[in-house]
Amino acid sequence: MKGVMLRICPYAHLVDITHEIPPQNVPAAASMLQTFPAYFPPGTIHVVVVDPGVGSERRAVALETPQARFVGPDNGVFAPLWQAAQRSWPAHDLHAVALTAPRFWLPQVSATFHGRDIFAPVAAHLAQGVALAELGPALTTITTLPTADPLWEDATRLVGQVIAIDHFGNCITNITTTHLEQLGAPADLLVHLTEAEARNDGAALAPHASHPHTVQIYHTYADVVPGAALALVGSTGHLEIAVRNGNAHEVLHIQERSTIVVQTRQH
Amino acid sequence: MKGVMLRICPYAHLVDITHEIPPQNVPAAASMLQTFPAYFPPGTIHVVVVDPGVGSERRAVALETPQARFVGPDNGVFAPLWQAAQRSWPAHDLHAVALTAPRFWLPQVSATFHGRDIFAPVAAHLAQGVALAELGPALTTITTLPTADPLWEDATRLVGQVIAIDHFGNCITNITTTHLEQLGAPADLLVHLTEAEARNDGAALAPHASHPHTVQIYHTYADVVPGAALALVGSTGHLEIAVRNGNAHEVLHIQERSTIVVQTRQH
Amino acid sequence: MKGVMLRICPYAHLVDITHEIPPQNVPAAASMLQTFPAYFPPGTIHVVVVDPGVGSERRAVALETPQARFVGPDNGVFAPLWQAAQRSWPAHDLHAVALTAPRFWLPQVSATFHGRDIFAPVAAHLAQGVALAELGPALTTITTLPTADPLWEDATRLVGQVIAIDHFGNCITNITTTHLEQLGAPADLLVHLTEAEARNDGAALAPHASHPHTVQIYHTYADVVPGAALALVGSTGHLEIAVRNGNAHEVLHIQERSTIVVQTRQH
Repeated sequence: MKGVMLRICPYAHLVDITHEIPPQNVPAAASMLQTFPAYFPPGTIHVVVVDPGVGSERRAVALETPQARFVGPDNGVFAPLWQAAQRSWPAHDLHAVALTAPRFWLPQVSATFHGRDIFAPVAAHLAQGVALAELGPALTTITTLPTADPLWEDATRLVGQVIAIDHFGNCITNITTTHLEQLGAPADLLVHLTEAEARNDGAALAPHASHPHTVQIYHTYADVVPGAALALVGSTGHLEIAVRNGNAHEVLHIQERSTIVVQTRQH
Repeated sequence: MKGVMLRICPYAHLVDITHEIPPQNVPAAASMLQTFPAYFPPGTIHVVVVDPGVGSERRAVALETPQARFVGPDNGVFAPLWQAAQRSWPAHDLHAVALTAPRFWLPQVSATFHGRDIFAPVAAHLAQGVALAELGPALTTITTLPTADPLWEDATRLVGQVIAIDHFGNCITNITTTHLEQLGAPADLLVHLTEAEARNDGAALAPHASHPHTVQIYHTYADVVPGAALALVGSTGHLEIAVRNGNAHEVLHIQERSTIVVQTRQH
Repeated sequence: MKGVMLRICPYAHLVDITHEIPPQNVPAAASMLQTFPAYFPPGTIHVVVVDPGVGSERRAVALETPQARFVGPDNGVFAPLWQAAQRSWPAHDLHAVALTAPRFWLPQVSATFHGRDIFAPVAAHLAQGVALAELGPALTTITTLPTADPLWEDATRLVGQVIAIDHFGNCITNITTTHLEQLGAPADLLVHLTEAEARNDGAALAPHASHPHTVQIYHTYADVVPGAALALVGSTGHLEIAVRNGNAHEVLHIQERSTIVVQTRQH
């Protein structure tokens, strides 16, 4: 992909944001994708290749907001950021097109890697100054995702899930600052953990009665002693479960899609 | 390596192609290396550091074709691309030299990391405009590899092997489009899988009678239902074994060097 | 972090040195950090985000030597390179400041990711020409680490430990060329290995009576037969334990913090 982009746009500045989205996990990519564009230079072109439907009939799209541009599969990965954009900017500042003009693609398009054959060359042409409208017809809607939002059981209890596990073993949930503010002050909240029933490799879990099943929300890792479990709002605005100087994923047996419940403390 | 290159050539555009070649696996690197140069700008300098013989008597080389330049160990890693270049271009367009001129190296050369001490500075000097001929004497041949080609048992049966497993668990074989075309139309072919006898860690494999031992060749992942196994020609032109939305390496117990047989269907 | 830097300094050349420091391992990062700056262009700004104390009272610093600049947490990670700088250059060539001027940070600073919110923007402002002195008040000392140096039992016996395991499974120790020179010629030294008592996952180790517990120091991997264990001085000047064409970490059951003893041969 980088070679393809540099052939078209030799002075492109290429940055790898992440290669750690779990394979084929469109909701996780969609959630992560909301947090990055604000940190990049305006007009940055973000290319997304979480694309389990490659080679099928799923559409490819390019999007433009006053903040950034996006190129990738129309499989829902752009839905949350696009909905947020629609809340932030007037409709005439937002543009979406279907990628249908093959003159901006590689001459030969494989059935398995549109990242290289379609998205990369399209992004490079955008960087070279091609207008979004040249890439294909305007779209009025893009594909949405079944909601990945957490579920309110009642006004005091929110049921979310782990959407990603980072390099440190921190378990990032789909519960954000906005949700927590509706529940109350962090000191008034409890976070209940549900451990995975078995590891990926099918091995039985060691007994671990000593591990906490309920943790509190702190400001930062260093607010607890080394080895202790905690919840905190991470740098992307998502509630995460962590172990200070440790690996929450391993120690607490939490996995992707594990349930995490936040509840107002009973007084 | 990047620091060394930027000291010599401050405006070099550095791209990491892959860090996922299995350690010391020269044939896998050689096979992968054939597929990338066509996607990069002409004249790109590709540095290869799959170098199990570092510090021994193995030669270091730089190569030039009308498409690209290459710097690395003369251990066979360049053999397939060089043979392909010899089929594509006249001899006077191809140049190979041994790296023998220490003025293009770091002042101190370690016995264990020629990537940093020899290949990186040589590549940066090439990028700065140094001519290939200045790096050392011309070579008429470079080191070849014992063939990594698949074996024809007869005209209807080809025995290959897995040469790499990618980030998604897809198992990439040494069987290419060219081989498949000699066997017949994809719909007429069957792909037999041989699972590994034991995992790397020595653990016994779980029984898995339900897993297919023969799969068909499809056009893309989305042609089968999620969880199903398939074979397909991947984006580098190699036959690969995959599981839609899954990890073929784990699910099918296929590993590097596992045997994969493609056979014409009996009519 | 890269987006933040490019907003401030659009032409910054960004290089990832390593993402393989074990989480929260400040001594390992400190040891590695000594070896890189000499290979980069003078004035390069090195940003370090091994920062287990993020969000606590730990100070943030920027340092400048005639060779390079550094930005990161004042948790000891810079101590060895700063002590070496003090041995190499006069005091008036070395500058250290505490990062206290929020105008060089992001407007909102999270409690968990100062890499993005403080270190990255500070580094980019330095690259844009901001003087070190503008970032905050001068420091006369920075935080030191409990020594990570190996221990001399007597003049013939040095007890060190593994500080990192690389991509190939080579086990890198805190014993350097300088220590070895004090012990004697490599051919006169023996290296005793202590294997880990259990693997990270708690599984029992397979018996392995055939594995060597004492190895010799060689010049390079290719000095022994494939599969054999050896010690050698790696490309960063640290003694490492390796297996030719193999993975010493797995084969020899050596882990981070495993004890490695170098001893003069009895004559």
